[in-house]
Amino acid sequence: MLLPPDLVTPVLVVDQARLERNLRDMAASAAARGIRLRPHAKTHKTAQIARLQLDLGAIGLTVATIGEAERFADAGVADLFIAYPIWPSPARVNRLRALADRVRLRVAAESPAAAQRLAPLSHGASPPEILVEIDSGHHRTGVPPDRAGEVGLAAARAGLPVAGVFTFPGHGYAPGAREQAAAQEAAALAAAAAALHDAGCERSGGSTPTAQLTADPPPTELRPGVYVFNDAQQLELGVCRGDQIALAAAATVVSHQAPGRFVLDCGSKVIGADRQPWSTGFGRVLDRPGARIVALSEHHATITLPPGMALPDLGQVIAVVPNHVCNAVNLADELLVIRDGEVFDAWRVMARGANS
Amino acid sequence: MLLPPDLVTPVLVVDQARLERNLRDMAASAAARGIRLRPHAKTHKTAQIARLQLDLGAIGLTVATIGEAERFADAGVADLFIAYPIWPSPARVNRLRALADRVRLRVAAESPAAAQRLAPLSHGASPPEILVEIDSGHHRTGVPPDRAGEVGLAAARAGLPVAGVFTFPGHGYAPGAREQAAAQEAAALAAAAAALHDAGCERSGGSTPTAQLTADPPPTELRPGVYVFNDAQQLELGVCRGDQIALAAAATVVSHQAPGRFVLDCGSKVIGADRQPWSTGFGRVLDRPGARIVALSEHHATITLPPGMALPDLGQVIAVVPNHVCNAVNLADELLVIRDGEVFDAWRVMARGANS
Repeated sequence: MLLPPDLVTPVLVVDQARLERNLRDMAASAAARGIRLRPHAKTHKTAQIARLQLDLGAIGLTVATIGEAERFADAGVADLFIAYPIWPSPARVNRLRALADRVRLRVAAESPAAAQRLAPLSHGASPPEILVEIDSGHHRTGVPPDRAGEVGLAAARAGLPVAGVFTFPGHGYAPGAREQAAAQEAAALAAAAAALHDAGCERSGGSTPTAQLTADPPPTELRPGVYVFNDAQQLELGVCRGDQIALAAAATVVSHQAPGRFVLDCGSKVIGADRQPWSTGFGRVLDRPGARIVALSEHHATITLPPGMALPDLGQVIAVVPNHVCNAVNLADELLVIRDGEVFDAWRVMARGANS
Repeated sequence: MLLPPDLVTPVLVVDQARLERNLRDMAASAAARGIRLRPHAKTHKTAQIARLQLDLGAIGLTVATIGEAERFADAGVADLFIAYPIWPSPARVNRLRALADRVRLRVAAESPAAAQRLAPLSHGASPPEILVEIDSGHHRTGVPPDRAGEVGLAAARAGLPVAGVFTFPGHGYAPGAREQAAAQEAAALAAAAAALHDAGCERSGGSTPTAQLTADPPPTELRPGVYVFNDAQQLELGVCRGDQIALAAAATVVSHQAPGRFVLDCGSKVIGADRQPWSTGFGRVLDRPGARIVALSEHHATITLPPGMALPDLGQVIAVVPNHVCNAVNLADELLVIRDGEVFDAWRVMARGANS
């Protein structure tokens, strides 16, 4: 990734060529297997990338919150799935009703109680479709596959169409775990479809670590998010190569007070504080694979270099890869888009902070 | 903290009574010791809390970036210290010059090279004052105390007034470490002042864990930030009591699929992903001290309860304390201010994202 000169750091930059290649590769992979692609827009939160995804054949977008759905609807996206077990309070039901009047809407349910509370939506002109959330091994949210029928029944009794089941195989986010996670995901989705007595229903899965693996039976729909940019977690899990990293924080060297150690001006307010137990640090330095981000404050990233590697000069600008790109993007108001080493656009992170 | 009914969660709420007590207590503690208070505004990033701090006797504010300084200058704050070793590129020097024309400005330097680059500011009507950053044991940025003179000399040769020295005793952020950190801070500041041959110069220190400890010789100025709200880190370090927590994320129970475990709708996009090695989890549940936040995704906080503690109902709203409140606030566009269990104001986080 060639950084333009004179960037005002810290700032998030997107390499347009890498981004578009990542988008094309995932679209082609899904198409080759006959799987529908519904990318998770929580990663990029921008109208421009949403448009690129849809132009490449995505059937719609996935979002995590009603607020994200509202902003992407405002941006003209016509088919949205809120893949989150939102609690249907009266205020939320009203917002869902307004959304269902504007777009083709799918909504998650993961308990009979929540499904029942969605009943007022059945009276609308185009009620949302329900997907039952199941747990395929991540043990976060979702019912066990054999209990999908209970939730589906509650939704049907509430007068809502049940389109199928979905899961997030988040347990694939660990070294060596993604093949098994993909297999468990496929099996759990199939079992849940059977529990709904609807083998032909939507079986929606996917995450960036598992989306390109072969599973039997394959999901009918995939919802990866991170793949548009990739990040240090995907790199360290072996999901992507370094040249598939499409987003970085451009940061300036502000201090070097000890041998083999320097400090950059990108901290947790720019790249996020995410760190998995298996991460090598708080992110990666794009062109220095041996470097480690050993400490992170709000505005400081402390980097150590292997013996013999030269320290960068004070004032030099360096590209840092966040561990978890979704959280880094959600800290920024805009992304600078670079092509051939020049800034040619700035995309607003228009769904930033849309958490409710 | 009494949460109002019908909050749209997840949302950050500030308990006004607790906030004001925290502000008064720190102001009184500094005043009783004859120490000037220059609170770090990176924590709250709001004009309203800045005004309260100044009304209670703070001599000015500390900020971390030029962007924060610009926004607080816009809000009418007249005395600002950028306590960060910014690299003085030509663009940054221009912004500092514009700031120095508007407010009483202090700027950090932590290398002779950076100090030299500030020389163009010496020609302004009111050049900024320089404080030399020293390392008192945190080993992040700052020169060793005995080398403060080199940086001070470079600043003086650049034609800028050298007001003194400053440090951040961040190594006090560990269990049992803050007393020693405060002692090291005091000794390092005194040694650095001696290296500047200016025993009467500003010796600026402070952090919330150390700010109320007695040190010899005491700093002349303190820059705590987190104390306005406190957070789970301060609670677990023993720096504050539970009833001094003035900010929480109000979050809704969206799932309980296993005994003793439930999921809230506040994730790392609301409370931040910060977790120190000594933290008990990804934050704390305000009214359930035995609960642990064992996992955090972007929109999910997974809580475990000790045996025998009743699970909350689906849909119930619960107050969660972030580990690191500065990063949580920087994720929000506004803070809801509550008094007597009612929302009575919303304060804009007007310096949110001002990282450069």
